[in-house]
This record gives sequence, C-alpha cells and structure tokens, in this order.
Amino acid sequence: MTGDAFHAVDVDRLRSGHGVKWGSLPPGTLGAWVADMDFGVPPAVRESILRVTERQDFGYPFWPDGDPVTEAFEDRMATRHGWRPEPGRTRVFTDLIQILQVMIEHATRPGDAVAIHVPTYPPFLASILRSGRRVVPLPMRRRESGWDFDGEGLADRLRAQGCRMLVLVNPHNPTGRVFTRAELAPLAEVAAELDLVVLADEIHADLAFRPARHIPFASLNDDAAARTITTTSATKAFNIAGLRCAVAHVGAERVHRSLAEAPLDYFGTPSTLSRVATVAAWREGDAWLAELMRTLDHNRSLVARWAAALPWDLRYHSPEATYLSWFDFTDTPIGAAAPAEHLLRKARVLLSEGAEFAQGTDVDCAPFARLNFATSPSLLREVLARVADL
Amino acid sequence: MTGDAFHAVDVDRLRSGHGVKWGSLPPGTLGAWVADMDFGVPPAVRESILRVTERQDFGYPFWPDGDPVTEAFEDRMATRHGWRPEPGRTRVFTDLIQILQVMIEHATRPGDAVAIHVPTYPPFLASILRSGRRVVPLPMRRRESGWDFDGEGLADRLRAQGCRMLVLVNPHNPTGRVFTRAELAPLAEVAAELDLVVLADEIHADLAFRPARHIPFASLNDDAAARTITTTSATKAFNIAGLRCAVAHVGAERVHRSLAEAPLDYFGTPSTLSRVATVAAWREGDAWLAELMRTLDHNRSLVARWAAALPWDLRYHSPEATYLSWFDFTDTPIGAAAPAEHLLRKARVLLSEGAEFAQGTDVDCAPFARLNFATSPSLLREVLARVADL
Repeated sequence: MTGDAFHAVDVDRLRSGHGVKWGSLPPGTLGAWVADMDFGVPPAVRESILRVTERQDFGYPFWPDGDPVTEAFEDRMATRHGWRPEPGRTRVFTDLIQILQVMIEHATRPGDAVAIHVPTYPPFLASILRSGRRVVPLPMRRRESGWDFDGEGLADRLRAQGCRMLVLVNPHNPTGRVFTRAELAPLAEVAAELDLVVLADEIHADLAFRPARHIPFASLNDDAAARTITTTSATKAFNIAGLRCAVAHVGAERVHRSLAEAPLDYFGTPSTLSRVATVAAWREGDAWLAELMRTLDHNRSLVARWAAALPWDLRYHSPEATYLSWFDFTDTPIGAAAPAEHLLRKARVLLSEGAEFAQGTDVDCAPFARLNFATSPSLLREVLARVADL
Repeated sequence: MTGDAFHAVDVDRLRSGHGVKWGSLPPGTLGAWVADMDFGVPPAVRESILRVTERQDFGYPFWPDGDPVTEAFEDRMATRHGWRPEPGRTRVFTDLIQILQVMIEHATRPGDAVAIHVPTYPPFLASILRSGRRVVPLPMRRRESGWDFDGEGLADRLRAQGCRMLVLVNPHNPTGRVFTRAELAPLAEVAAELDLVVLADEIHADLAFRPARHIPFASLNDDAAARTITTTSATKAFNIAGLRCAVAHVGAERVHRSLAEAPLDYFGTPSTLSRVATVAAWREGDAWLAELMRTLDHNRSLVARWAAALPWDLRYHSPEATYLSWFDFTDTPIGAAAPAEHLLRKARVLLSEGAEFAQGTDVDCAPFARLNFATSPSLLREVLARVADL
C-alpha cells in the first residue's frame, strides 16, 4: 500500500488553517503541513480511544502495576532499538519541549552553555536562550557524501565555552541524518571528559529508513548510560502530536535526584487518553508504521529524483530518517535570502524558513528551507512542480 | 431522570480495581469510588472526542483566535457565576494539584506559611509541606447550624505565622460548605491587610445545590480580584478527571509577572482531546449537569435521612455542594480511631480516612471519614445499610 491509498490528506484542513502555525496564507497554497503528517493514525490508536470513550471511562486512572506508558517505552526500546532502559528512571511528561526545558533547569545553571547541532528544531534554540543559557552550536557540515559534523578538537571547544550539557537530536532534524556509532562514540568520549549531561532527543528513531539504523545514545556504553537523558514520544512517528505524551529516561543520577526533589506533580501529567493512545501506538502500531515508512520512502525517492532532475543544484542529500528535506537555495533562481518566504509568495507552497533553524547563533542557514514530504504523492508532486517552475 | 436510570455504575470496574487509589480490597467491598463519580459523562463530551477521533485529527492544534478552553472558561464564569475574568490572565494547566504547586512556588518562598481551611483535600496539605512551606490551618468549626470557621483575630494569627498565601477551597471539601459573602468578605479584608496572594480553588462551584450560590472570590471587590488566582476545571462536575485540563486565572500581578518569566512550556500542556472535551462540557454540558444535580440531590437526601434515623449521632450536616459527606464517628460503635479502616474491615465499604484531611497539622480529624455519594441510589443504600449494621 504505497501512495495515495495510504493517506488522508485533507485540503479543507489546509484551507481552514488547521495545522498551519502561521497566519493567513495566500489562497491555493499547498504544503501547509509544517510539523504533522497529512496522514491518519494507526487503527489501534483510534480504537484505543474509542474503547475508553464508549465506556465513558474518564475518571482517575488506576494502574497498580505502574504507568503503562513507561512499560511500553521500556519494552519498545529493548525489542526495537536494542537498549534496555534502567527500571525506575522513566518519567512521563506532556511533550519534548517541556522535557528540554525541565532538563535544562535541572542539569545546568543560568549562564552555562548548552551544545547542540545547528541547524536544529527552532523551539529548541528558543528554549535554551530563554532559559538564560548560552547556545554553543555544533555546525552540521556538508560533504560530498552527505551531512556530518566536525568532531575535531570538540572537547577543547566545549570546555572553552563553559559547556555543561549536550543536546543531541538523533536522528537529526532537519538534515535527516542518523548518526553512526563512529560519530556517536567520540561525542560520548567528549561528554565523559567534560562530565556533560546529554539530552538525547530520539523522537525520530522510529522513522529511520533502512539500511540506516538508530543507535540510542544511552546504549553506547555504561558511562553514556549514566549521563544521558533519553527522550522520545509516540507523537511523531504515529502522528499524534496533539495528544501530548512524552517520556524521559533519566540516566543522569544528578538530574534524577534533582527531579525527585521537585514539587509533586509540578510538571503536570498527560491525560488517560493520551497514555492509552501512546501505549496502543507503541505496542500495536508497527504494521501501520511499516506502511507509513513505505509511503515516506516512496516520497523520499520522489523528492530525490526531482532534485536530481532540476536545472539548478539544491545540494540535496536524502534524509536517512524523518519526513523532512533540507534544501539549499543559494544557487537557484529563488536565491539565498528567505527562500521559504519567496516560495510562499511566488509558488504558493509552504516550507519552513532555514534561518529559524539557526536563530541566535552565527551559523548561516538563511539560504535553506525545510520541506515536509509526509503527504500524498500527488500533492507532493504538485508542490515540487511549483517550486521547479520558478 | 433521578436515580438508577442516570448512572453507569460498574461493579466490575470496582472489582478490577479501576478507580481505587489504594491496594487490594476485601472481596465484595462497595463504595470504591474515592474521587470520581460512578456516572458517565455529558453526551457532548463523548461526541466531541468521537468527532476528533473519526477525523483522526490528532496533529498540532491551530487556534488562531486563542485557546478555546480560555474562552469557554471566561464565558462560563460570566454567564454562570457572575464574574468577568480579566482577559489575558488565564493559563491552562493539566490539573489543580499542579496549579497549587506552581502558584506556591511563584507566590511564596521556602519557609513562608500558607493558610488553608482544615480539614482539606489531602494532596493539598502534602503539596504545601513538600514545597518547604508551612501550613497554617484555619480549622473548620462545627456549630448547631453547620460548619463554619472562626474569623476572629484572623489577621493577627496569620501575621504572627508569617503567612504569605491563603488557599481557599470553596465550595469546601470535605464539609461541602459554600461560603457566604458574609464569610468571604472578612477573608478578603485579611488578605488585603496582610497582602496575601489568594489561591481560590473553585472546582466544585458547579456542584452547588440550590439555594446555595457560589461566589467567586475574585468577584468580591477590585482588591480581591487583584490578588486572587482563581482555579477550576471541568473535570470534577463533568466527571472527566482523567482528561487532565485545568485553568488558573492569575489576577495577582506579581504572580502573573513571575509566570511570564518561566521557561516556555515548562508546565506542559493538555492534549487537544482534553481541551475539546473541556470546552464541550462547559459549553454544552449544562442539561446533563442539571440531571446530575437532581441525582446527587436525591442521594444527598438519602444520606441525610439515613443519618437522622441512626441510633447514634454522626454530627452530620448535609453538604451545600459536592458529592461528599463528612461524618464524625466519635459517638458511634465504630469509634474515633481510623473509622474508615474499621468500616473497610468490618463492613467492606470504602470511605476516605478523616485523619488524612488534617495531615501535618494539629487539627484532629481522626474520628472522621468522608463518603462519596456519587453513585447509584441502590448501591448507596447498600453502603449505608452496611455502616448502620455495625
């Protein structure tokens, strides 16, 4: 089931503005999926919500054996990603931005620096800056073979900057890189040398295309396990962002102790439905996920072929994970300044502006824009055709 | 529609342990509803969730006109409770315990004292103590006419204790009092005199029985409005505790500013479904609520008649709001020590232990127990009969 059969693209949803994070759009704009997928959800997710709703069972939950989200997370990490989380170290939050904020507060002090690959998900940069911490960008580097980063002399660079924490987004958004063991191991060494807390955002782990294989940072070695906070959620791969349920496995003892002293319930808690849906996604959503990956892979090829056939060079490398494409418009008629704005105005297609992915740093992402290709092939083709026509 | 037709009591739910907050119970135990109602939810709540689920619309929400929960809260306060919240001052959280915690942190410092009527909802006492603040109990007082509290010399008492905040649970849990203007006005004067922040927990406001009429503390006068944080939620009256959605209207300027400086998204956020259900309850749930109140009032009378007919004196006063009865077992065969434990063991009925409602204070609630009467009249009759048989 590849292609149009799979999805539930709803252009009315676009027209009504639903899912669009910015203001009014020119009529006929396409591609207004900015963060979500234009697909439905796994049948098991839908059915889990319907079951609770039919029972009208919205009272306080009772889970004498512990939070089912924690158990589903632990099982999934072990069976799917070959990593066995430490029991008693997983906390349930509402979303990853919250987790980033909370961990920054509990792992660092105002004025400390936090290292992160740049470009990166814009709210992460905004969060770090707002918390009064400094961002130390680890610039992604484009090679002939794809995106990587320069690990040379990293320990010295981070030490000089007063870095106390590393935020590792892997698989990487927006480049779609799935970092290899050869790339992760030196990061773990640097983290050990500087005694960094590592916040490993692995929310795209389930969206890795074969042969790329996601390696949980905490699985690298015992030292990495003892300094890493692994965070993930079913919301990304299973398209349930609005349900707000995310987990953090707090390997870092110091942060674990600090959180244990926080006021009870200070960070709130997801609803029963969000938990039930998360468990359904993780435990019963893999057949759906396999179909999803076929559709995304089909779209990924479509984008790659389109980019290769263009008369200009987008310096494009297909992502190894995610449903995101990261284009460089420098050598194109669209130009190196605010390409997404240009594309919206001239082609009525909606991409995310690259500059936002480097905000507050000296990394130049202004010529870039990010495309979300998690939509129907037909809609994707139309979007790509409009860009090519400029 | 009074009585059995209304509810959906599910003894299997009891047997399976769902809804029970403590460990295993003796077989055949009745009354395991501790905090929820043994009823369903308003049809509009159910339908709102089904609509979203059928559309599989679980992506990030887009609400260009602002959070619909805030708007529904503001409208409801104005139309139902005669109080017009100040625009731009309402924040959405996941639950009231979270709100209490957050407001304590932002309104007081460690070592400050927080005044609260005692007995009170046990997690509130636990929260205040855990935050390193001191509890100053305002003891509820039993008079011939019912429960009240001693406002005499209150300002001096609170000043002497270093009190910085008043937590006002109104309608009051567990006594069910709906405080009158004559009771609230002196509290507002004391709050003004000592410059207290008032956290007004008004979650039971929609569960007041006529002729009792709930008066929002913030509606008393301009000074009260400017120092009160009003907190409520649809979860109590509409039986959706597991959905986790609550609001805080932050009238207190100092706390408002402090919260504005908190990290973005630090406190998480409820899911789309929780918000949609809350809006449906508040905007379309009032016919259901009217039926609920008839059922609860029927049960309330049943308890009152039962108490009056007992050969012993429970010193009982019917609540003016809530679905809770507060019994004093001192002059009964059950005795003044841990009556709930006694009742569970001997009568296999589940009440909440009174001592928990005064934990960490010098107020003696050990002879009390709290009954939740939000169940079917038949089940309620059986519970009451078992108690009477002791």
